[in-house]
Amino acid sequence: MTIATEVGGRGTDEEPAFSSRAVAIVGLGLMGGSLALKLKENNAAQKVIGITRTRKTLDVALERGVIDAASDQLNAARDADVIVLAAPVRTIIYQIEQLGTIAANSAMLLDMGSTKRAIVQAMNALPERMRAVGGHPMCGKEVAGFDAAEANLYQNKVFVLTRTERSTPDAFNLARALAQSIGSRVIELDAERHDQIVAAISHLPYVVASSLVETVSLQPNADGLLMQLASSGYRDTTRVAASDVSMFLDILLTNRENVSQLMREFSKRFAELAEAIDSRNGEILRPMLDHTAQTRREWHSQNKA
Amino acid sequence: MTIATEVGGRGTDEEPAFSSRAVAIVGLGLMGGSLALKLKENNAAQKVIGITRTRKTLDVALERGVIDAASDQLNAARDADVIVLAAPVRTIIYQIEQLGTIAANSAMLLDMGSTKRAIVQAMNALPERMRAVGGHPMCGKEVAGFDAAEANLYQNKVFVLTRTERSTPDAFNLARALAQSIGSRVIELDAERHDQIVAAISHLPYVVASSLVETVSLQPNADGLLMQLASSGYRDTTRVAASDVSMFLDILLTNRENVSQLMREFSKRFAELAEAIDSRNGEILRPMLDHTAQTRREWHSQNKA
Repeated sequence: MTIATEVGGRGTDEEPAFSSRAVAIVGLGLMGGSLALKLKENNAAQKVIGITRTRKTLDVALERGVIDAASDQLNAARDADVIVLAAPVRTIIYQIEQLGTIAANSAMLLDMGSTKRAIVQAMNALPERMRAVGGHPMCGKEVAGFDAAEANLYQNKVFVLTRTERSTPDAFNLARALAQSIGSRVIELDAERHDQIVAAISHLPYVVASSLVETVSLQPNADGLLMQLASSGYRDTTRVAASDVSMFLDILLTNRENVSQLMREFSKRFAELAEAIDSRNGEILRPMLDHTAQTRREWHSQNKA
Repeated sequence: MTIATEVGGRGTDEEPAFSSRAVAIVGLGLMGGSLALKLKENNAAQKVIGITRTRKTLDVALERGVIDAASDQLNAARDADVIVLAAPVRTIIYQIEQLGTIAANSAMLLDMGSTKRAIVQAMNALPERMRAVGGHPMCGKEVAGFDAAEANLYQNKVFVLTRTERSTPDAFNLARALAQSIGSRVIELDAERHDQIVAAISHLPYVVASSLVETVSLQPNADGLLMQLASSGYRDTTRVAASDVSMFLDILLTNRENVSQLMREFSKRFAELAEAIDSRNGEILRPMLDHTAQTRREWHSQNKA
């Protein structure tokens, strides 16, 4: 069974074609804002409609010419050819349900949510006339919000696309063209496998980093010398703990089974390491650390960023 | 009780004076190699004696003029005014014992080991005629070895100094002058407090990162797509797991009590987080994540590297 396919463009040197009469972007944070910037830069849409609850973001985006129309109502997506959902996962799920009665028949829904199983389920429940593709651009940052948006956010990043029961070949091709037009490498992945993978490489690191920050912050004098002396090791190991909480809350709640399973496996390994340390026996501890260090070095040499 | 003092130079704009007839550096890895490079750059010693078991490193260091004399025997330190120990902690402890019969009466021993309690104990056991100061330059890297050495490694880094029963005021001043002459900021800290602090900001992050790498590497397809998709979040959270194993093995074994205690506290928090996730209740989970994210952001804004 092929679970993942890197999906190429139509021709090797050809610019991926994506153009639309009207694109609605729901959510103008880091992801949605960056998408709007890039679509404008590419002249890819006659009209970009920005939809978010934050009036100030709409005003700034309009003023900077990043969007052509602004609304705080999902209804404003009714005239769009392409509707991109760029909010935390549980908000996306709610919006998909609403769009079932709002979106035009010809519209294609694409989401940019961090987990896929729950979203694909919601897309599968849409009326049969509708077209919808699951998506996840993997370009996480620990900063969030429209102010952090940048046109090149998606450049050379992996954009996972997931087929749903509402993904016609045309809809999938359109989603792929959009992703490629913003510079991403498209990989097709089913929702289950996607959620397993991101649980391991993103959600587990987040809960680990979060627990680390909390543990260290509870140490005596943690607001003084201890935190001043913390440097690159602490900084890097804990960076993702500062990620957007609303985003990660929805991730953890919609990918609970995978995350729980991995947390149990992590705890087991952590306890084994603690036991080896408490044994005071270097002959037990050294091979464990050696194996891990070697694994990490091999990954680094094969995946230099 | 003052447990930490930032120790200033003799005058604010004055160049810290450090010069020596002969400095022996025992261990020519990242730390010892960088120190040799900087002392040469500063013309701070008439003679730099490099001591390590690796013949090849001695040859390269001699050829590049980083050291003036080379030996694979600790005996070669007998003529030095200043002896700097730059090996993993348990090796340093062994060398301190040996140097009790090797070093000149006038010599000052300074170590650069990652934990201080066990080393200070060994220094306290030296003959009363000897002078010795504990040290820890906090400039960790996940690379090791002479090839990674650079003259500016210590620039603007904190160099902890720890008084021992063999630290005369003159010996302490000399150690401070050496640390400042290579560009470090000197902080005085007692051994207990030092070891508690580095357990929290360095040793706990290491065992956490190590367990994370091991857990992820055991996932299905971990050598394929999963590891290809791992990007900046995984990379940063696990970086320290690739650190030198001999160094960390000695750290964990000589700082066992502090590390074990912190591992228990981490496990407790991790289990609380797992329970909150399993509750599927955002009202329980959100405030936990919020508090941690806020703590991490505050640290970042106060300690920008």
